[in-house]
Amino acid sequence: MSDNTDVTGPAARDFSPAEHAELALLLEVAGTPKPGNVDREHDLPDLRFEHFLAGSVGSRRGLQAAEDGAPVGEAFERGVAGMSQQDGGNTQFGCLLLLVPLVTAASAVEAGLTPGDVTAVVEATTVDDAANFYRAFEHVDVAVGDPPEDAPALDVRRGSGAIPTLQNRGTTLYDVMELSAERDGNAREWTGGFRRTFDAAESILDDDGPILDRAARTFLDLLADEPDTLVATQHGSEVAAEVSRLAGDARGDPEEVARLADALVAEGLNPGTTADITAAALFVALERGVAV
Amino acid sequence: MSDNTDVTGPAARDFSPAEHAELALLLEVAGTPKPGNVDREHDLPDLRFEHFLAGSVGSRRGLQAAEDGAPVGEAFERGVAGMSQQDGGNTQFGCLLLLVPLVTAASAVEAGLTPGDVTAVVEATTVDDAANFYRAFEHVDVAVGDPPEDAPALDVRRGSGAIPTLQNRGTTLYDVMELSAERDGNAREWTGGFRRTFDAAESILDDDGPILDRAARTFLDLLADEPDTLVATQHGSEVAAEVSRLAGDARGDPEEVARLADALVAEGLNPGTTADITAAALFVALERGVAV
Repeated sequence: MSDNTDVTGPAARDFSPAEHAELALLLEVAGTPKPGNVDREHDLPDLRFEHFLAGSVGSRRGLQAAEDGAPVGEAFERGVAGMSQQDGGNTQFGCLLLLVPLVTAASAVEAGLTPGDVTAVVEATTVDDAANFYRAFEHVDVAVGDPPEDAPALDVRRGSGAIPTLQNRGTTLYDVMELSAERDGNAREWTGGFRRTFDAAESILDDDGPILDRAARTFLDLLADEPDTLVATQHGSEVAAEVSRLAGDARGDPEEVARLADALVAEGLNPGTTADITAAALFVALERGVAV
Repeated sequence: MSDNTDVTGPAARDFSPAEHAELALLLEVAGTPKPGNVDREHDLPDLRFEHFLAGSVGSRRGLQAAEDGAPVGEAFERGVAGMSQQDGGNTQFGCLLLLVPLVTAASAVEAGLTPGDVTAVVEATTVDDAANFYRAFEHVDVAVGDPPEDAPALDVRRGSGAIPTLQNRGTTLYDVMELSAERDGNAREWTGGFRRTFDAAESILDDDGPILDRAARTFLDLLADEPDTLVATQHGSEVAAEVSRLAGDARGDPEEVARLADALVAEGLNPGTTADITAAALFVALERGVAV
C-alpha cells in the first residue's frame, strides 16, 4: 500500500463509513465523463442525475444499518428500499451490493480496511442474508441475465419466491455470488477479494487533481481493462468487449472520450457494473484519506 | 395552498424530514444554470461541486439532530460542523440556517408544514440556541457584514467570544435574527414567516418538468425579485440591485441566462442567499410531495 499522507486533508477524515459510502455514491455519479452513464454532464432518457441524488440519500438507510452492525443482507435490502424512493428506477443496486459489506468491514476495524477484512464479512454471510438479497429485487427492476442453467429455482427475478429454495439448500449470500461470479462483475468482487475495488482505490489515491476528475479517469481505466458485465448481459459479450476496446483507445484524449460518451448514450450502452466498482473504489479511497 | 395531487409520485414520499433536507441541498446545488453559483455545470475557482456534495452529506448530522428533537442552535452547530468536513470552506451555512428550523417544524407536525409551524419554532429559540449559532462560526469562514452599530459585542466574527454578552442580555437566536433582518435575507426569512421560502415552494410545485429545471427557474425568479443580500454584503447594494435587474432581463432566455452565469462567475458575484432560499423552498416542496 502506498503512503497516502500527501493526499489527506481535513476533508473526509471525520466522516463515518456510512457517510463515506453515501459520499462515494454522489462522487461516482458526479464524475464526468463516464461514457454511457449518467454523470454531471449526461442524463439518460428516463434516468437522470436527480434520481441518483435521491437514490444516494435513500441508500444511506442501509449504509447506516451496515455501520450499526445489521447483517449484510438486511442492510442491503434496507438500502435498496431507500434508494428506490425516486422515479428513475434502479440507480445504485450494484453499488450497494459492493458498499454494504465494505461499510460493515470498515466499521469493524480500527483503521486500515483491507481486502481480507471485507472477504471475511462476505464469507460469513448466511441464508438469511441471501433471503434479504432476493427480497431486495422486489423494490426495483434490476437488469439481470438468465440464472445458471443448473439453478433456475434461484433466478433472482423470483424475488422472495426463491427463499424456500435458499433455505432448503442452505444457500448463503456468498454462495449466490459464487453462482453468479462468471457473469457478473460485482459478484466477482465478492468472491475475488474485491481486487478491482482496492486496485482502483490505490489509483485514485495515487492520482492528482480534483476527486471528480480522478473518479472519471478510474472509471475509464476499469472499463478499458475488463468488459462491463452489465453491457454483456444486455447486449452480448462481443459488444461489451468492443466498448472496452473503444474506452482503451479513447483514454487520455478528452475529445475522443467525449465522443465515446455521446456514442454510448445514443446506442443505449450503459457500463453500469464499471460504475459500481468505481463507487466502491471511491469509498475505499475516502476511507484511506483522499481529500475532497 | 394549491392542490398538489398531480405532482406527487412514489418519489420522496417515504423520506423523512432530514432526508428531504439533505436532498434539498443536493438538488439546489445541482440545478443549473444558477448564475453566479456553483451548480451542475459551474465550479468557482476554489469552491467546486464536490465540496457541496460532501457538505450535504456532512450536514445530515445536524438535520437528523433537528428531526430527532435537538434544540435548533445545537442542531445547526452540528450541521455546520459536519458540513465543514471538506476543503471548499463554507458551502451551506445559510441553507442550514433555514433548513434546521424547517426540519424541526416538519418533524413535529403530522402533515402539512405551514409558515406558522416554523415561525413557532424560531420564536421559541433561546439564549442557548444563540450561543450555539455563534459557536458555529468557529467551524468555517462565513462572509458576513459589519454588525449593527449598536451591537458590536454581538459581531458573529467573535464566535463563542460573544456568548457572555448573549447571556448577559438574554439575547435569543430569534433576537439575533431580528438584529440582522435588515441586512440579511436569511434572517428576514426567520422573522417574516419564511414568506419567500413558502412562496417559492408553491412555484416549484406549480411548475412542470424535471425538478432540477424547476430549481433553476426558482433561483432566477427569487434573484430577479429581490437583491441578494450576500452580494450586497460583499459588493454593495447597488451591485446587488444591478444583478437582480440583469436576472430579470435574462429570465426566460436560456442564452441570456447562460451569458449572465458566465459574467457573474467571472466577476466573482455569488448570490448565495438566493441559493439558500432556493434550498429551503425545495425542502418545503419535497415535504409537500413534489416528485423526484
